[in-house]
Amino acid sequence: MLRTHTCGELRLPDATKTVTLAGWVQTVRDKGGVLWIDLRDRYGITQIILEDGISSPDLFATARTLGREFVLQTVGEVVERKSKNPNILTGEIEVRPTQLTVLNPAKLPPFLIEDETDGGDDLRLRYRYLDLRRNPVRRNLELRHRMAQQTRVYMDGQDFIEVETPVLIKSTPEGARDFVVPSRMNPGEFYALPQSPQTFKQLLMVSGFDRYYQIVKCFRDEDLRADRQPEFTQIDCEMTFVEQEDILNMFEGLIRHLFKAVKGIDMAEVPRMTYADAMRLYGSDKPDTRFGMEFRELKGLFDTIDMTSGKGFPVFDSAPMVVGINVPGCADYTRKQLDELTEWLKRPQIGAKGLIYARVNQNGDVKSSVDKFYSEDDLNAWAAHFGAKPGDLMLILSGEVDKVRKQLGELRLEMGSRLGLRDPNVFKTLWVLDFPLLEYGEEEARWFAMHHPFTSPKPEDIALLDTNPGQVRANAYDLVINGTEVGGGSIRIFNRDLQARMFSLLGFSDEEAKAQFGFLMDAFEFGAPPHGGIAFGFDRLCSLFGGSDSIRDFIAFPKNNSGRDVMIDSPSPISRKQLAELSIDTTVETK
Amino acid sequence: MLRTHTCGELRLPDATKTVTLAGWVQTVRDKGGVLWIDLRDRYGITQIILEDGISSPDLFATARTLGREFVLQTVGEVVERKSKNPNILTGEIEVRPTQLTVLNPAKLPPFLIEDETDGGDDLRLRYRYLDLRRNPVRRNLELRHRMAQQTRVYMDGQDFIEVETPVLIKSTPEGARDFVVPSRMNPGEFYALPQSPQTFKQLLMVSGFDRYYQIVKCFRDEDLRADRQPEFTQIDCEMTFVEQEDILNMFEGLIRHLFKAVKGIDMAEVPRMTYADAMRLYGSDKPDTRFGMEFRELKGLFDTIDMTSGKGFPVFDSAPMVVGINVPGCADYTRKQLDELTEWLKRPQIGAKGLIYARVNQNGDVKSSVDKFYSEDDLNAWAAHFGAKPGDLMLILSGEVDKVRKQLGELRLEMGSRLGLRDPNVFKTLWVLDFPLLEYGEEEARWFAMHHPFTSPKPEDIALLDTNPGQVRANAYDLVINGTEVGGGSIRIFNRDLQARMFSLLGFSDEEAKAQFGFLMDAFEFGAPPHGGIAFGFDRLCSLFGGSDSIRDFIAFPKNNSGRDVMIDSPSPISRKQLAELSIDTTVETK
Repeated sequence: MLRTHTCGELRLPDATKTVTLAGWVQTVRDKGGVLWIDLRDRYGITQIILEDGISSPDLFATARTLGREFVLQTVGEVVERKSKNPNILTGEIEVRPTQLTVLNPAKLPPFLIEDETDGGDDLRLRYRYLDLRRNPVRRNLELRHRMAQQTRVYMDGQDFIEVETPVLIKSTPEGARDFVVPSRMNPGEFYALPQSPQTFKQLLMVSGFDRYYQIVKCFRDEDLRADRQPEFTQIDCEMTFVEQEDILNMFEGLIRHLFKAVKGIDMAEVPRMTYADAMRLYGSDKPDTRFGMEFRELKGLFDTIDMTSGKGFPVFDSAPMVVGINVPGCADYTRKQLDELTEWLKRPQIGAKGLIYARVNQNGDVKSSVDKFYSEDDLNAWAAHFGAKPGDLMLILSGEVDKVRKQLGELRLEMGSRLGLRDPNVFKTLWVLDFPLLEYGEEEARWFAMHHPFTSPKPEDIALLDTNPGQVRANAYDLVINGTEVGGGSIRIFNRDLQARMFSLLGFSDEEAKAQFGFLMDAFEFGAPPHGGIAFGFDRLCSLFGGSDSIRDFIAFPKNNSGRDVMIDSPSPISRKQLAELSIDTTVETK
Repeated sequence: MLRTHTCGELRLPDATKTVTLAGWVQTVRDKGGVLWIDLRDRYGITQIILEDGISSPDLFATARTLGREFVLQTVGEVVERKSKNPNILTGEIEVRPTQLTVLNPAKLPPFLIEDETDGGDDLRLRYRYLDLRRNPVRRNLELRHRMAQQTRVYMDGQDFIEVETPVLIKSTPEGARDFVVPSRMNPGEFYALPQSPQTFKQLLMVSGFDRYYQIVKCFRDEDLRADRQPEFTQIDCEMTFVEQEDILNMFEGLIRHLFKAVKGIDMAEVPRMTYADAMRLYGSDKPDTRFGMEFRELKGLFDTIDMTSGKGFPVFDSAPMVVGINVPGCADYTRKQLDELTEWLKRPQIGAKGLIYARVNQNGDVKSSVDKFYSEDDLNAWAAHFGAKPGDLMLILSGEVDKVRKQLGELRLEMGSRLGLRDPNVFKTLWVLDFPLLEYGEEEARWFAMHHPFTSPKPEDIALLDTNPGQVRANAYDLVINGTEVGGGSIRIFNRDLQARMFSLLGFSDEEAKAQFGFLMDAFEFGAPPHGGIAFGFDRLCSLFGGSDSIRDFIAFPKNNSGRDVMIDSPSPISRKQLAELSIDTTVETK
């Protein structure tokens, strides 16, 4: 080794030892007669000290050539510091060198290698290897490492077997767009990269592997939003001879283990909520339960009393749903603030038509933007229904059920953020259960699997498959933390006929179903056991544990929003020879 | 759970318990008044017993509908067996059912789900999910799981951080052929799948990650031999501030840990040998050291005395090298056996021109196929040089140095196999060191990197780069077990100028080097530390530990020699819509 110790391990009892350290020059402070070098590596920082009359002039000369990020090796004696630094673990000692060797010089980095840097996103992605030197970024990846380690500790302890499934698989039209790989040995044919190992893990259950898991790369060729990456990592799991309750318990165990082992948090049991309730109370299938502000319907599908109709307010009279939230302590919102909130809601991203508000003044009077339509008694009834107290502000939307719920859900999150109720260091977990099996695609005029085509309907709802497919509930579940879906899964179909019926419902002809998924349906005929599973978005889970919104901060070498790795400049054109070997050609001109 | 216990866990103290089991029907034995069902899962087999007068006729009726591989759930009482089976852990008990429920029937499998099966390779690959039910195949994957677990135990314990590097990277012309992935968002451009995470792990060292590892899928679009797969798995590792000795010690530690933890074998220290010695003594850079038969040169580059020339035998007189092995106890090989061996050597795969032999009879006389050219004293001198004893057979080849060594190396392995000296349950490890940095490609008339372009030359040989590149030794090393290269690595170049010089030697123009690897050379200017690493072929390592020649047996879903997954029928054509979206077209007609 080019060192005897790391830059993070020397302590006072090491004093008088002769050591060799190697690392990067964080700073040089030159006071003339005294010169300090902070030498940094992954493990910490150790101070090197040169003093007139003690250190040789040669050492001073070398030290004065050093710049930031030079790679330096030093041999020296560990001595007790005169002025100790209680903020770092090596703060009681320093090293008095007898040798300083520059192992590699460094050009000035294009941005500061400090916790707070002056580099913009693009520059830091281009020089990702320098950004990774910064403590916060390195700590994110160290957290990710611990998350993976502890996931394996738990899964191994529960007798799961890690099995690697193939990366070069088969393209299927259902779901998101595949990345494909031309096959040189099979001209005109393509592999696809897996969006998930779904069918393979089901086959492993048919094989009797009983409990499978894998931390595995998956791929989706979608237009990228800020928090999506074309390649992402899943914790992928499957179990045999289980019912939904078993999966919930097993993986609630995983999440609680991770919170305990990685964050030191004793997480309570994970509460459960049906999809129907989540939509009704939060307008979302992934509610952020760090705060309340549950929806109250003033007229709608679920409340027995209609509190808004017949009072002459046409907007509410004509709306299928009128629903609102009570925002505590916001009765003092000014007209300007409320106008801004209304504009925020009207943006195309949200698409609300308008906002009705009603504030409860300190004296208990309720004043609203629709006072001319509703009596004092009406408004008092609203306040009672909302549980609004003096000082609170009721915000009410109306319209089509699904749309207005989504809009109010966004407003609820916005108000939660404004009130500081979404602390990234507070963690609230939730199982959302009983998802619909199917959703209707208006554009394509057909049913789509809400989860995927292998999800089983609840046995008691199977009869509805023919009469009212939209009402069929699935044995499907999502794990939600702080309003983010971190995992989802289902009990699977394991019967060939039911699987064939599902494909038929989804618009597959028998031939298509056979060509795409014949191997799975065949497998179901050779002794397929009941099974189910779940997959967690590992990048997202890490970013949540790290208190960040961005998964990119938890990926060593992420791509930008155009799917480019700007560091290595990829994707890039390939040679005509490569194209010819692969029996493909491009249909656009490239450089 | 659909069971209270697995099929492998019930023991005598469980007697009288009511249990629920679920699994696959291995066999049904129906003796009329008594009927036994062997119920199987991953954990074992439990016997179910039905008896006239005790078990209800309904149960008998159900049991008689069961076929092999039916999925069965049973509720019953654990009872002590009358006739115990000491061969299985559940052999002291059986279960007397009160319920038998067929969870899923099964068609007759196309081959026997037994340790010895009647299914051929193709059939078993097509129904891989059934082949995976067989104990030997399942045990291979369980071994692989333990290998991965224990690799992580060791690496985590040595402070290595697991970092996931990207799968969608950039195509580079050096090395094997890349698989490529068209980018929809960047028309005409392509990602490549990594042949190894080489440049990324080096960048992680530049980033200060200090110790990195990953168990990672890699890809090579090569024509497949029996033991190659287009996707394969590496244990990929890199360390900073190290010299070759540190890497050897660290990863010798990994291998010894794996032998101990997975196989219970206390492996001795790994011996070391230079590349030059390996070629001289075994004619191979991956010698099988489970047995001796080291080469003896009778005339050549290294021996001081020429024992063959000037005796009038033109084949030896004209050959640059005459070299042989001593095969113990084979003096009684018949003329027919020796002729067969000669034919075996003359096949195009080996390409030898002929075989000279000399046997030491029991009385000590040496008789050879070249008696008319060499005196008794000559032959006695040979025997002494070979260390041949009465009963031994010397086999001698001659020709060009490199060719004849390779041929004799093959012959040595063949003789080792014939003599039973290559027991797959005996393990001999070896470090091979000091590989040449470059090898000359006659066809392309240029130098190629023997390892890869990032391998550093030995500092003392750098001067030879200009004068005699072929003589430059690299800081490169391979780990060999039983004649198989299981891992290889090197100390890397970390200096921009030296890296640029390497690319230039390999025929890259400055522009090409910059376009392909500019990011790495740039990184070397921002404080790159000395670093080195190694990668192990994980599939191969698992197959070796499992005592098998075939990596395919240790991969859950392997591809065949045409790169096809015959189970899912991939690769396959994709739709015109997909091709159009990707801005590519095929240049061949497909169905």
